[in-house]
Amino acid sequence: MTPEENLAAMGVTLPPAPKAAANYAPCQYALSSFEGSAPVLYLSGHLPLKIDGSIYTGQIGPNGHPVEYGYEAARQVGLNLIATLKEELRDLDRVDRVVKVFAIVQSSDDFYEQHKVVNGCSDLMMQVFGKERGLHARSAIGTNALPFNASVEIEAIVQIKPLPIRRLY
Amino acid sequence: MTPEENLAAMGVTLPPAPKAAANYAPCQYALSSFEGSAPVLYLSGHLPLKIDGSIYTGQIGPNGHPVEYGYEAARQVGLNLIATLKEELRDLDRVDRVVKVFAIVQSSDDFYEQHKVVNGCSDLMMQVFGKERGLHARSAIGTNALPFNASVEIEAIVQIKPLPIRRLY
Amino acid sequence: MTPEENLAAMGVTLPPAPKAAANYAPCQYALSSFEGSAPVLYLSGHLPLKIDGSIYTGQIGPNGHPVEYGYEAARQVGLNLIATLKEELRDLDRVDRVVKVFAIVQSSDDFYEQHKVVNGCSDLMMQVFGKERGLHARSAIGTNALPFNASVEIEAIVQIKPLPIRRLY
Repeated sequence: MTPEENLAAMGVTLPPAPKAAANYAPCQYALSSFEGSAPVLYLSGHLPLKIDGSIYTGQIGPNGHPVEYGYEAARQVGLNLIATLKEELRDLDRVDRVVKVFAIVQSSDDFYEQHKVVNGCSDLMMQVFGKERGLHARSAIGTNALPFNASVEIEAIVQIKPLPIRRLY
Repeated sequence: MTPEENLAAMGVTLPPAPKAAANYAPCQYALSSFEGSAPVLYLSGHLPLKIDGSIYTGQIGPNGHPVEYGYEAARQVGLNLIATLKEELRDLDRVDRVVKVFAIVQSSDDFYEQHKVVNGCSDLMMQVFGKERGLHARSAIGTNALPFNASVEIEAIVQIKPLPIRRLY
Repeated sequence: MTPEENLAAMGVTLPPAPKAAANYAPCQYALSSFEGSAPVLYLSGHLPLKIDGSIYTGQIGPNGHPVEYGYEAARQVGLNLIATLKEELRDLDRVDRVVKVFAIVQSSDDFYEQHKVVNGCSDLMMQVFGKERGLHARSAIGTNALPFNASVEIEAIVQIKPLPIRRLY
């Protein structure tokens, strides 16, 4: 099953590829301009934008939203990350591996379950790319404040299968 | 225009290359010791040190400094990052690409515009390295506390043009 | 002296290699599946787990634990990071370089010495891997909340010496 077939089987429609919220790119390569190298793609911090343009907002924790809300938000961030990959690569099968995910959860001071929230993104990556290509290293932390009052922000590092260099840009 | 010429045209004098605040290095390479590879340089988290040794401090947000103060602080961090690159590479033209920037803004709980603050660094990178080499992936988050009460801390990943391996160390 | 000999000379027993707290891997490679490349290993965010299964918890700062407690917590995270490396690589001499450390310290709002806390991990890396292989780029930031109420969370990027590709998995 290709990642696109997995998405279809899940009944998921990707959101539109998000635009950078400020003066940067949604993703950028390292090691892409050297003959024979295998590029590594850095995805910018993505937010839990929904297809209708709204966003999951507010803190997770005892004085805020429950873990389940955060899980859904993290899953939505994951869909946006995949939308950026699809926009950039056209074919999600060009993903060799999801290497790493770094996730920041807007948290009340006494919330200690960021790892359960971030599974919303990790579970999605495994479902879409499979257990082998989707299995990533990960950090999950809390914070008191995120852009646009987002509940979760996640960035990722993805290994891309090598291509003839002339096609990389 | 070389990056150094861009800096001169902007009338900017780089601050002295910052020293590590503790037991680590201002930057470190991956992939540098393997024949034919293109090194990736990781820049440590840098702070908004001014040339006079003072620092931009305090939270950004409704109960703290305005966005404009944060923007200037982020720009100052960017100058320090470039100073570290200059110290390490001698010739800023050895920068192949600014790949990624990760920025942390000391924020009051209700501040949601970290992305506008971090543009202070991103705009500078574009001005100095140009739109192609300066265009980077980016994450901007808030936090409640940073070393030395700094308003902003930023780390970066930079792709370096390959050199004969004997010159890398 | 090998890293293992350094650990023995320090009288240190590594904790058991930590398991991922959720749906991810303790570490993951980039650039490992391409002939002749030198793999980069990303270590997930690790926590200050002690051998008895307990954990260093709570904020560091004027209203929390002193810097010394945080230093010990960061050192314990470092031991867990090395335990993951040992589990993955079997031989710690396969480490070519500790490239980068990213450390997040659970901090009260007025705590500004995260860099002193994180030295607990950095000092250990230098002791175990030596000044040349252990010298890393680093970022240290504060936050209001971490998983399991941990006092410190640290992730790392490690350059691995190249191996014939068939041995990498």
